[in-house]
Amino acid sequence: MESIIWHNNSLKILDQTKLPLQKEYVLCKNHKDVINAINTMQVRGAPAIGVAAAFGIVLGSNELDTDNIKEIKNHLQKIKENLKNTRPTAVNLFWALKRMEHLWKNNNYNNVQMLKKELENEAVKIFEEDIRLNRLIGKNGFNLIPQNANILTYCNTGALATAGFGTALGIIRMAKKNNKKILVYACETRPLLQGARLTVTELMDEGIEVKLITDNMAGYLMKQKKVDLVIVGADRICSNGDVANKIGTYSLAVLAKHHKIPFYVAAPNSTIDYNLGNGEDIVIEERNPEEIRSIFNNRIVKEEVRVYNPAFDVTPNNLIDAIITDKGILRFPYNNSINNIRKE
Amino acid sequence: MESIIWHNNSLKILDQTKLPLQKEYVLCKNHKDVINAINTMQVRGAPAIGVAAAFGIVLGSNELDTDNIKEIKNHLQKIKENLKNTRPTAVNLFWALKRMEHLWKNNNYNNVQMLKKELENEAVKIFEEDIRLNRLIGKNGFNLIPQNANILTYCNTGALATAGFGTALGIIRMAKKNNKKILVYACETRPLLQGARLTVTELMDEGIEVKLITDNMAGYLMKQKKVDLVIVGADRICSNGDVANKIGTYSLAVLAKHHKIPFYVAAPNSTIDYNLGNGEDIVIEERNPEEIRSIFNNRIVKEEVRVYNPAFDVTPNNLIDAIITDKGILRFPYNNSINNIRKE
Repeated sequence: MESIIWHNNSLKILDQTKLPLQKEYVLCKNHKDVINAINTMQVRGAPAIGVAAAFGIVLGSNELDTDNIKEIKNHLQKIKENLKNTRPTAVNLFWALKRMEHLWKNNNYNNVQMLKKELENEAVKIFEEDIRLNRLIGKNGFNLIPQNANILTYCNTGALATAGFGTALGIIRMAKKNNKKILVYACETRPLLQGARLTVTELMDEGIEVKLITDNMAGYLMKQKKVDLVIVGADRICSNGDVANKIGTYSLAVLAKHHKIPFYVAAPNSTIDYNLGNGEDIVIEERNPEEIRSIFNNRIVKEEVRVYNPAFDVTPNNLIDAIITDKGILRFPYNNSINNIRKE
Repeated sequence: MESIIWHNNSLKILDQTKLPLQKEYVLCKNHKDVINAINTMQVRGAPAIGVAAAFGIVLGSNELDTDNIKEIKNHLQKIKENLKNTRPTAVNLFWALKRMEHLWKNNNYNNVQMLKKELENEAVKIFEEDIRLNRLIGKNGFNLIPQNANILTYCNTGALATAGFGTALGIIRMAKKNNKKILVYACETRPLLQGARLTVTELMDEGIEVKLITDNMAGYLMKQKKVDLVIVGADRICSNGDVANKIGTYSLAVLAKHHKIPFYVAAPNSTIDYNLGNGEDIVIEERNPEEIRSIFNNRIVKEEVRVYNPAFDVTPNNLIDAIITDKGILRFPYNNSINNIRKE
């Protein structure tokens, strides 16, 4: 399944809110459609959001019928801010927008058409790079998976969360390709059930054995020695190795530590926020309470019920056994290992 | 809300699968209706199941139109086995049935009418006792709640899970009555959402401040110091203090230990299985995978998705700071403290 398709100047985004029961692509005609797709989580997953935002800029560049380069740059600047304000936690969004911004800020395009072409090239490059980096993550990480492995994973970190292939799921996929025998326990990942709806579907499509559990079963599974390792993705990695990821990740890391089970994070280097010293400074998005009060538009509790709905949490570096990136496997102390790959 | 109503030889059970959006009572005309209500979790919660089963015996005693005492005793024996086989984990079911069985086994009723009357009296006694014991639990436990308390609770342990008042929620209720300022975080409790549907409703009805969270948020909440204590119910307590309770309880206990937050269990003494040495011997019920594949009959994932659905887990005694019973507060080492109340 392809999460994002760019073809003939048109962007199609797979509506992940409807998976797995319906497979529908949303046509994004302009940057506002992309903003809507990110806000409603039709496209989600840190790397995929970054790629979608980059194409949002490309669509935005076509919104003005002008040859005035200043006018178009002003427009792009506004669009960029709007795209940036969709979701606060995952850093790949900001990273991708900054790469796009670089083209109109630092290069002196005087020709609108040329700038537009370069923007498209850059977005396609971000897209293709993401797949390439995911494959590198897979290659770097699959040896951490034992020959017969029961793996617990969380949320969705597969092709759907990225431009393709996947981060944590990419490693699992690569391990499978290297003939390792694998059983994955996929946590359903409330409230939006990305684990149940997306991860289970991707793994079954790949012929990888998978069992669905509710999030609250993870500890009991570990206690029964049914889990050899935990592997998750990341939405933002600080320079000290603290990791923001889907709400519930932190609980899994504590449970893994208690049971002496390795806890791994997989992400492309674009997920590292070198400027952020530690996890306390990460802005955690709080989403609409209705995401918890209703499931698939079916009301569970009354509207007046008060809800706390943070979309992410932060796992401190001391609970993480390794961070697997396209640039290699990072280990504690992460300040050093992250600083080393920054220099590359 | 009353979970179980016995009136004029008729049993009405509140259908908890439909709460909070619909409030419907199911009329149980015979013991098979009670079996169905327990199996489908129209009635749930260890103490409430015990009470319902006792009335199932009473209804069963009226199923035969005979004066033959032997015939009726044989019938009751069969019914008892069937009621016993509904759910394997909570011990109150077996405890209540044993109390009922005692009447036709050890006492020499020769008169069918007299036995029937005694059975009804005993069931009503079990019902009334449960409420009385719950109040004692509340009285014994409420001093463990600080003056301004943020309390995390799990599943439903209120009036709905019992004949009335509740165990863990009973303590919270009693603390509120004693003018303590309380905010409860209620974990939704997947898959059947007893926390979201039942606990939130009960607390709001009582005017106790409550916020709903998904189960995977508990760790992050603790990390933010938003939780002062955790209090849960129990389905079976072993003689060493190991506790079987709703799946997810164990994870909360590990998380509480990691964050140095007190973890309390509340239950009537009928939940203690004095004959079971430790939690490893507790049979953990596995329920229908459809409970996870669908929510309120709305399919989330396809039918072919493999699911692991244990209904309970076991929390070892060393993660439990106190077990609050009608007979007092039990502390580690539980072998001693539990043995002491057995003798009473």
